[in-house]
Amino acid sequence: MGRVAIGVDVGGTNLRFGIVSEAGKVIARSRAKSDAHQGVDAVISRIDKGIAGMLKRAERDGHVPAGIGVGVPGIISLPEGVVRFSPNLPGWENFPLRDRLQHHFRLPAIVENDANAYAVGEAWKGAGVGVDSLVCLTLGTGVGGGIILGGEIWRGVDGMAGEVGHMTVMPRGRKCHCGNTGCLEVYASATAVVERAGEALSLGTKSCLVDCFPSGLTAADVKHAADTGDALALRMYRDAGSYLGIAIAGLINLLNVERVVIGGGMAGAWDLFIGPLRAEVARRAFDVPAKRCEIVPGILGDDAGMVGNAGLVFRG
Amino acid sequence: MGRVAIGVDVGGTNLRFGIVSEAGKVIARSRAKSDAHQGVDAVISRIDKGIAGMLKRAERDGHVPAGIGVGVPGIISLPEGVVRFSPNLPGWENFPLRDRLQHHFRLPAIVENDANAYAVGEAWKGAGVGVDSLVCLTLGTGVGGGIILGGEIWRGVDGMAGEVGHMTVMPRGRKCHCGNTGCLEVYASATAVVERAGEALSLGTKSCLVDCFPSGLTAADVKHAADTGDALALRMYRDAGSYLGIAIAGLINLLNVERVVIGGGMAGAWDLFIGPLRAEVARRAFDVPAKRCEIVPGILGDDAGMVGNAGLVFRG
Repeated sequence: MGRVAIGVDVGGTNLRFGIVSEAGKVIARSRAKSDAHQGVDAVISRIDKGIAGMLKRAERDGHVPAGIGVGVPGIISLPEGVVRFSPNLPGWENFPLRDRLQHHFRLPAIVENDANAYAVGEAWKGAGVGVDSLVCLTLGTGVGGGIILGGEIWRGVDGMAGEVGHMTVMPRGRKCHCGNTGCLEVYASATAVVERAGEALSLGTKSCLVDCFPSGLTAADVKHAADTGDALALRMYRDAGSYLGIAIAGLINLLNVERVVIGGGMAGAWDLFIGPLRAEVARRAFDVPAKRCEIVPGILGDDAGMVGNAGLVFRG
Repeated sequence: MGRVAIGVDVGGTNLRFGIVSEAGKVIARSRAKSDAHQGVDAVISRIDKGIAGMLKRAERDGHVPAGIGVGVPGIISLPEGVVRFSPNLPGWENFPLRDRLQHHFRLPAIVENDANAYAVGEAWKGAGVGVDSLVCLTLGTGVGGGIILGGEIWRGVDGMAGEVGHMTVMPRGRKCHCGNTGCLEVYASATAVVERAGEALSLGTKSCLVDCFPSGLTAADVKHAADTGDALALRMYRDAGSYLGIAIAGLINLLNVERVVIGGGMAGAWDLFIGPLRAEVARRAFDVPAKRCEIVPGILGDDAGMVGNAGLVFRG
């Protein structure tokens, strides 16, 4: 019992809800499909339902809700709590999410970029505990990033800072959906691993993955193939690690942070990419900041975003 | 008349001294050769002499010296005012410069990294006026960098942040003296422009620069050749601009700063590199932060460091 916050993580695929204590413990969680293609009203109605369920449960158990914190992928206007644009949420342009929630639930609400919320979660209660400066990378459909400097999120003047996934790591490299060529994201996301494996297969590279190809090749397939020693699959993860290392070496030379935290689904393949990643960092970054910077996996998993959003509610 | 600070810029080649008013105006300046190869005692004695001259002049004119601010290239331990290591100042390892100056002159002193001091100078009284977040690049012998976020220098946990010149822009590119390959510095410094032109000449590329080659080719020669339309010289600056654009696009996506200020000797060739630079930024950075970020030349020139150091004295 005591003060709690409702943390919400809005993704293109899933909505996650949690009751989070002031100590950062997740007391309860629930999940729903986003079905984002149905448009903003349908998603909001599912968010309302999820939050209402959490609030009901919190009150039943004698907790006092302090507010609601929501993480949304895309560009958020912080002072107004407005979602300016979200690549994964069609129809959300300029949606006043914070005011909508405050009005509906009569509770304080905050809206934050999902990668920033992830970084706050790991910094507060996860792999970032004990340091003031860190960069979080999330390897999933894309490569997300959140930067914490001096204990605070660095959001940039438009709230768009932290796009580690769209730093160029190979100037004349692969095309990215953002319009650039050679972004980190086109080498180190789960999507990239699958696409690059598919391209190699279609060029005739021998691999057990040929059984799942061309239809239905997934990141889980590539991971499984790598675990059984498949050379192509192993190479995909090694390459991802090398490109991550190039970008992280740059971050270390630029920001001299204490820690880099790597999360998201693909972080589960840690042992498959961390070696080449560390080799590139050792080769490319200055000794003092490279030795200082710990590179560690995230530990909160799917809870990181909701914990971070709840933390931002408590911080006020 | 009024409070002034003595700003000092210690370089591998020159020592610069200035009397700077509380309004950031340089009232007087003087200069001496560093002759850094003579070792720390010889350089310190010239620094003492330069500062003493400025103090004498300040007092003669009725100004009240508030303190001394010194910028030094290399790794500075801020809390202790100790120069840990300077690549251009042999023998300065762990030199307690701040205490030495405070004891000698009986005035408060601060010691700062020279690129950070440059950034503070431009932010306070130069091309960075009016914004809270900016990255400064200095294009000279190397490529230096200073980062200002929320109005404060971001120094990193070891005081080593801001090494923009050692971000990788071409993973399998040219060898850098830092041990990495493909650093921005090996494409965009004045040294790089000269070295790359020399390499092209030795491969038989036609250019009026062949007259100065192989002995004594300088950055001024390449600049002069470019101004007369020499194709090789023009290409060197275009290439420098492209690589600068790759790095700056990454900075914009990562930090979403309001301004990038480019100074140092090579910034005098602005018109020769800014086009390709802007083209890479437009191609590689997200629209919102790219349009937000102004890319401008520094305006304080050789005064930037001393003004910044003086500013840090007044800030206390």
